[in-house]
Amino acid sequence: MEIVGKSLPRKDALDKVTGRARFIDDYTRKDLLHASTVRSPKPHIRIISVDKKEALSLPGVFGVYTHKDIPGDNRVPFVFQDYPFLAEKDALFAGQPIALVAADSRERAQEAASKVKIKYEELPALFDPLEALKPESRKIYGKDNIFRSYRIRKGNINKGFDEADVIVGRTYTTNYQVHGYLEPQGMLAEPGNEGSVVVYGSMQCPFYVLDAVAAVLGIPQSRVRIVQATTGGAFGGKEDVPSIVAGHAALLAYLTKRPVKLIYSREEDFQSMSKRHPGWVNIRYGARRDGKITACQVKYVLDGGAFSTLSPIVLWRGTVHSAGPYDIPNVFVDSYAVATHKVPSGAYRGFGQPQVSFANESLIDELASELGMDPLDLRLKNAVKTGSSTITGQTVGESCGLTEVMTKVAKKGFWKKSWSQPEKKKGTVRRGIGMASSIYGVALGAEGQFLEKSTAHVQIYKDGSVTVAVGNTEMGQGAKTVLSQIASEALGINFEKVDVIESDTTRIPDSGPTVASRTTVMCGNAILDGCRILRERIDPVARELLGIRFREKMKTSQGFFVSEKNPKKKIAVEEVIKKCYSRRVPMSVQGFFRVEGTTFDRETGLGDAYFAYTFSTMLAEVEVNTGTGEVTVLRLVSGHDIGKVVNPQLAEGQIQGGAVQGLGYGLLENLVMEKGIILNPNFTGYIMPTSMDVPDEIEPVIAEYGCKVGPYGAKGLGEPPLICAAPALANAIFNATGIRVRDLPVIPEKIVLEELRKK
Amino acid sequence: MEIVGKSLPRKDALDKVTGRARFIDDYTRKDLLHASTVRSPKPHIRIISVDKKEALSLPGVFGVYTHKDIPGDNRVPFVFQDYPFLAEKDALFAGQPIALVAADSRERAQEAASKVKIKYEELPALFDPLEALKPESRKIYGKDNIFRSYRIRKGNINKGFDEADVIVGRTYTTNYQVHGYLEPQGMLAEPGNEGSVVVYGSMQCPFYVLDAVAAVLGIPQSRVRIVQATTGGAFGGKEDVPSIVAGHAALLAYLTKRPVKLIYSREEDFQSMSKRHPGWVNIRYGARRDGKITACQVKYVLDGGAFSTLSPIVLWRGTVHSAGPYDIPNVFVDSYAVATHKVPSGAYRGFGQPQVSFANESLIDELASELGMDPLDLRLKNAVKTGSSTITGQTVGESCGLTEVMTKVAKKGFWKKSWSQPEKKKGTVRRGIGMASSIYGVALGAEGQFLEKSTAHVQIYKDGSVTVAVGNTEMGQGAKTVLSQIASEALGINFEKVDVIESDTTRIPDSGPTVASRTTVMCGNAILDGCRILRERIDPVARELLGIRFREKMKTSQGFFVSEKNPKKKIAVEEVIKKCYSRRVPMSVQGFFRVEGTTFDRETGLGDAYFAYTFSTMLAEVEVNTGTGEVTVLRLVSGHDIGKVVNPQLAEGQIQGGAVQGLGYGLLENLVMEKGIILNPNFTGYIMPTSMDVPDEIEPVIAEYGCKVGPYGAKGLGEPPLICAAPALANAIFNATGIRVRDLPVIPEKIVLEELRKK
Repeated sequence: MEIVGKSLPRKDALDKVTGRARFIDDYTRKDLLHASTVRSPKPHIRIISVDKKEALSLPGVFGVYTHKDIPGDNRVPFVFQDYPFLAEKDALFAGQPIALVAADSRERAQEAASKVKIKYEELPALFDPLEALKPESRKIYGKDNIFRSYRIRKGNINKGFDEADVIVGRTYTTNYQVHGYLEPQGMLAEPGNEGSVVVYGSMQCPFYVLDAVAAVLGIPQSRVRIVQATTGGAFGGKEDVPSIVAGHAALLAYLTKRPVKLIYSREEDFQSMSKRHPGWVNIRYGARRDGKITACQVKYVLDGGAFSTLSPIVLWRGTVHSAGPYDIPNVFVDSYAVATHKVPSGAYRGFGQPQVSFANESLIDELASELGMDPLDLRLKNAVKTGSSTITGQTVGESCGLTEVMTKVAKKGFWKKSWSQPEKKKGTVRRGIGMASSIYGVALGAEGQFLEKSTAHVQIYKDGSVTVAVGNTEMGQGAKTVLSQIASEALGINFEKVDVIESDTTRIPDSGPTVASRTTVMCGNAILDGCRILRERIDPVARELLGIRFREKMKTSQGFFVSEKNPKKKIAVEEVIKKCYSRRVPMSVQGFFRVEGTTFDRETGLGDAYFAYTFSTMLAEVEVNTGTGEVTVLRLVSGHDIGKVVNPQLAEGQIQGGAVQGLGYGLLENLVMEKGIILNPNFTGYIMPTSMDVPDEIEPVIAEYGCKVGPYGAKGLGEPPLICAAPALANAIFNATGIRVRDLPVIPEKIVLEELRKK
Repeated sequence: MEIVGKSLPRKDALDKVTGRARFIDDYTRKDLLHASTVRSPKPHIRIISVDKKEALSLPGVFGVYTHKDIPGDNRVPFVFQDYPFLAEKDALFAGQPIALVAADSRERAQEAASKVKIKYEELPALFDPLEALKPESRKIYGKDNIFRSYRIRKGNINKGFDEADVIVGRTYTTNYQVHGYLEPQGMLAEPGNEGSVVVYGSMQCPFYVLDAVAAVLGIPQSRVRIVQATTGGAFGGKEDVPSIVAGHAALLAYLTKRPVKLIYSREEDFQSMSKRHPGWVNIRYGARRDGKITACQVKYVLDGGAFSTLSPIVLWRGTVHSAGPYDIPNVFVDSYAVATHKVPSGAYRGFGQPQVSFANESLIDELASELGMDPLDLRLKNAVKTGSSTITGQTVGESCGLTEVMTKVAKKGFWKKSWSQPEKKKGTVRRGIGMASSIYGVALGAEGQFLEKSTAHVQIYKDGSVTVAVGNTEMGQGAKTVLSQIASEALGINFEKVDVIESDTTRIPDSGPTVASRTTVMCGNAILDGCRILRERIDPVARELLGIRFREKMKTSQGFFVSEKNPKKKIAVEEVIKKCYSRRVPMSVQGFFRVEGTTFDRETGLGDAYFAYTFSTMLAEVEVNTGTGEVTVLRLVSGHDIGKVVNPQLAEGQIQGGAVQGLGYGLLENLVMEKGIILNPNFTGYIMPTSMDVPDEIEPVIAEYGCKVGPYGAKGLGEPPLICAAPALANAIFNATGIRVRDLPVIPEKIVLEELRKK
C-alpha cells in the first residue's frame, strides 16, 4: 500500500491554523434573525402561563414562540420520544426549553428572552438515581423510573463464585463529564426553495438532525437539507443535542420566514447540554488462587436525567463491556438507566464504558492486592485472546492483540522495574505506577444494527480529481484525511487530488451517526465499494490503452497504471480518466456497506455483540503529594490494537487527545450540581486539563491485528484512548499511596481525606 | 400512467409568485466584496498600459486585477480556447474585459472601474462577415477568419436542379437577438474549505462554469463547487457567458480571500453578452411543376464576433437543418462561422436554426407563388415522413408526426378558408395568413456526442420522500416539475413527495449542458435508470410484504403497491420504504444515460445526426397597415410533435413563450450596432414584445408520436416553439400585402419602404 499507512498531512490543518475555517457563527445571511431560548428556572415545575407581552414590546423582537406554535411533532425523535422540543405542561429539569425568541440581534434576543415571564408552580424533584429506583419513589418516567434495563446471564454465576478462592466486591461511582468542545452548540436555519429548509451547524450526526427538523416542522425529509459546518469538537456532545438546537432554529426560520441563527453561550451550553452520565457500579470478581477469574457480577446504574435521549444505548454499551477485557466463564449483570430531575445525560467518548471500566479495572487491582499478585500478571492471565469468550459469549476472532498491547505498554513503561507494593513506599511525595486495559466493541453493535450501514458518494472529475461525500462528519478527529487516504489507495489517484467534502443529507441517505469509532470502518468500506465499482469501469480502459490483457496483472502506483510484468508499460491515471470521459463512462457511484451478523438476546444478554473489537492498555506513572493531594502525572503510555493503521500520526493524535481527556475525567473535571442546578457552569469553575497537567510526552503504542471486515484491516480508535485513563491513574495513585479512591474524579480533597482517615 | 401526462402544478410556482425565490443578487455573505469590470472602449485596440493608481486610491477598493494576476489559465475553456478571461495585448471587441475591480460596495467598485485608465492605440476593425470572408480581408482569426465551416453533399445537386422545372433562389438576412432574460448575469464566489472555491449564480450549464473556474484558478475540479441559484431566464444567454462571469468572480475571491459578488447592470449585460448570431443565408430550391422539390442549395454565414465561443456548434445545428423539414434528394450546403470585431455571438433558443428557417420557410412560400400552389399543399407534398431521408441522409424513424401537425394546425387556423393569393387583397389595412414548418434534432446530436450523457442522483428518504439531483438546470422552463413527474411515475411515489433539488457539480459528474431541448430526454432517462435500480431493490420487499410471488404482476397506483390480480392486496409505498430502511436496503443511486449511434461525416455532411426529431408548424394571421407598416398579429397556432407529453400545461407554456419570443425576433427586436458599438443597449431602445403585441390566445396543437429513446416516449420542446414564428409572420405579411421582406426583423419601416417601392 502506498497511501494507507502513511502519516499524510491533515486535509483541514491549514484552514484551522490560519483561521480560515468557517464555523457556524461565521455564517451570515441577509435579514438574519438571532434566537434565544427561555428555559425552566427550576428542576421540576408546572407551567401556569407564559407571558410574552413585555418581550414582544421590545424593539427588534420578531416573535416569542412556545410549543403551541409547532406545526409538526413536538417530540424530539430520539430512541424514545419523551423529550419535547418545547415544554408543554411541565418542565422536568432546570434549563429545559420552554419558549424561543427571535430578534434582529443576539443581544436583543437574549434581553427579550429574559423578559418572557414563566408563571409556574414548583413541584418536588428527585435527584438521586438510586432513590429513583426504589419502589416508593415518585415517578418521572413510566412505572419505575427506568428508561431501560439490560441483563447478562453467562454461565452460572453461583457456580463461578463457588469455584473462587477469593471474592472481592466494591462500589465505584463517577461524576458527570462535560464535553468542553472549543465551539459551543450552534445552528443557522434558513428557508430554502419550494417550502424546504436548510440547516447549517455544528454537529456530529446530520441524519439525526434531519429526523428532528422534519419532525418539528411536519414536512417531508426531502424538503430538509442538513449541512455540517466546520465543527469545533464534539466528543458525543453533538450527537443528540444538535437535534434540539436545529429543531429550534428551523422552527423559528419556518415561523418568521427568515434565516435564524441560534448560538449557545458557554454557560447555556454547560447548563443544558448532555454530559457523561454519572455512574454507580457495584462489581464483584471471584478468582482462584492462581488468578483465574471465575465469576463477575455487576450492578450498573446510570443517571439519565429527565429524558431518555441516548441513555438506553449508552447503557447497552456499558453493560456489554462491564466485565472488562477478560475471559470469564460466569457473568451476571443487571443494569439500569434511570430518570431523575436533572439535565439529560448523553453521549460522551466511551459511551457508558468509562464508568464501568473505572470500576472493573480498579477492582482488578484490588483483586491483585488480595491475591498478592502483580496486577499486570493478573491481567495477562485473564486477558481475552483469539478463541476466548467475551462477556456476551462471543468468540474472539483473529484480530486480537490485547496480550501484545499489554506487554508492549508494560515494557515501554518499565513496569517490571517500577512496580512494587504500595505499602513499601514512604514520604509525603510518593511515586506510583498503574495500568488499565479495555476491550472496545467497534461501531454500534447488535443493538444499533438497524443503523449500521453507510453510503459514500465517489465522483471522479475529468481532470482526475475526486470528491467523496459520506454521511459521517469531520469534527476534528481526522476523518476527512483518513477517508481520503482510503479512496486514494483504492482508486490509485494521488492523495492531493482526493477531497472529502462537507456532510450534507441530500448527497447520500441516512448512514448512521458519527459515533462509536465507526467512521473509518463504515465510511471506509462504503468508499471501497464505490471505488471498486469505478475501478471495474476504469481498469478496462487502462488495459486497452496499455495493451494489457485481461488476465495480465496491472496495478496502480504513484499516479500511474502499471503492468506488473513490464513496469515500462505505464500510463498516468489522469490520462485514463480523460479517455473514460471522452467515452462517456459513468464516473460516479454511491458505494454502500452494511455490517452483517451481529446479535444480542435481550433475555440472556448473549450474542455476537460487535463485528470486531479494539484492545487497549494504558500505563500511568504519577507522583502524589499526600499532604496536598496533588497528583502530577509523570508518564502515560497508551497502547491499542486498532487493526491496520491508516494514518499513524493521526492515530497518535487520537491516542494523545484521548489520554488527556481521560486524565481530566480521572483527576480534574468536577461538575458540582446542587438540587439539579449546576454551580460551576463555565471553565473558571469546571477545571479541564491544560498542557501543564499533561506529561511531556504521551507515548503511543500501536499493534495492528488486521480485521477482515475493516477497510484494509482497520478497526476503530475514536473512543478507546480515553477509557483506560481514569482507572490507570487511580491504580497509580493507589500504588503510590495505598489510597484507593472509588469515586471520580480523584481530586486532591479525596486523597487528603483518605490520608487523614488512614492516620 | 398516472403522473406522466398530467398537468401538475409547477414545483417552483409558489416561490416565484410570492417573491420568495432567491436569485443571486439576494445572496449575502459576511465581508462580501463587490466587483466591477473594466472593458475595452473600442472594437479593436492595442493595450499600452493599465493604470490602476487612481482606482486603488479610492476608499473601499480592495484591488484592481489584470490578466497578470491569473494563477491558472487565461483561456476560457470553450470549444476553442481563443477567448481570454482578461485581455492581454489586444482587445478585439468593444466591451471585452480588461481588468477587474473589487470593492466594499457595488457603487464603489463601479466608480473605481471608471477610474482605471486604459492607455491604448486604436486599430482598424472589421465588422462585416462577408467582408471578413474575402481573401484580402484583415485577419482576426487564423488564416481566413473562419471559426469553422461545414458542408453537406447529399445526392447530386446538379442533377437535382436539372430535374427541376422551377428554380427559385434568394438571400435572407437576420439581425442579432438579445436574450432579454428577466435577471442579468450574476455570480457570487466564495473561498470554501481547504483551498476550494464555491460559486453560486445564474446559469444554464454548471459544468461549463466548473471547467472555467478550475482553469482560471489552476486548481483541481474537485476543489470547485458550482451551485445554480434560482435563475431568472436564460434562453442560451447563460450557456457560455456565465463561464466568464464566474471565472471573474472566482478569480477575485481567490485573490482577495473574500466572498465576491459580480452582478451585471442591464446595459453591461446588453453590451457584453452573447446574442443570436446575425445570419446571411443564400438559398435555392429546385422543384418539379407538381411541387416535388428536387434540389436545395444553401450558403449560410454566421457573424461570430471576435471570439469563437459556441459558434462552431451553432453553425452545425444551422447547417444540418438548413433545407427545412422536407425530403429532398439532392442537397448542397456550405456554411461558415466568421470572425468580426464585434461582441461574440452565442447560443439563443434555436441555436442557428431560426436564421436558416426564416430563409427556407420564406423561400418555400416564394416557390409556392412561383408554382401557383397553396403553400400548405407544397409543404405537405414534401414533408418528411417515417422512412423519408433527412438533409444528412438519415432515415426518419417511427416518431414523425409532421403531416399530422401541419394538417391540424391548418385546420385549427382555418387555412383553407382564409388563404388566398395576396394580389387579390385591397385597401390600406389588409389581412393575411402564413405558415412555416420545421424539423428539429433533439439534443446535441452527433457533433456534441462526447457530451451526450447524463447522471441523476435519486435518493429515497425513510419517510418515502425523494430528492433527485441532475446536472441540468431549471431556468424557468419547468424542468424540475417534468423531471419530478418522471421520477414519481417510475418510483410509484406521489408527485408531492418528489423534489428535484438545485444543480450542484459535486452531486453528479459532468452531464452536459442544459441546452438543445435535451433535458427531458437526457435527465429523464438517467432518472429512469436510477429509479429502475431502486425498484429492483424495493419491489421484492413489497412482494414479500404483500405475499405476491415473483411472476405475479404487481404495479404501483396512487401511492400503493397493488397486486394486479387481486387489487385488495395493497400496501402504501411509504410502508415498504420504511421496511427497506429497517432492512438497510441501499436507497440511493446514480442513474446514468448516454445516447448511442449518432454519426456525422465532416467530409460529406451525412450521417444519423440526431437520435430523434421534433416536428413543428406555426400558422400566423396578421393585419397589416400598409400606410404605417404596423403589423397586428391576430392569431398564432403553434403545433408540435414532441412525442409523449409529460406535462401538457407546461408544454403549452413552452409553446406560447416560444411563439412570443419568435414574434419578437420576427417583428420587433432590432439591435442597432454601429461600428461595433451597440446604440440601444437597454429595454427602452430595444423593443421586446409585451402582452399588447400578442394575440389573445396562442393556440397550441400537440401530436404525440412516441420516441423509443425518450423517457415514456418524450422528445424535446424547449427550442422548437420559437423557430417557425418569424417565417410564418413574414409569410403572413406577404400574404396580406404582397410585400416580401427578406431581412429580420420585419419592422414597420421595411414594410413601408417596400410599399413605396411597389408604387
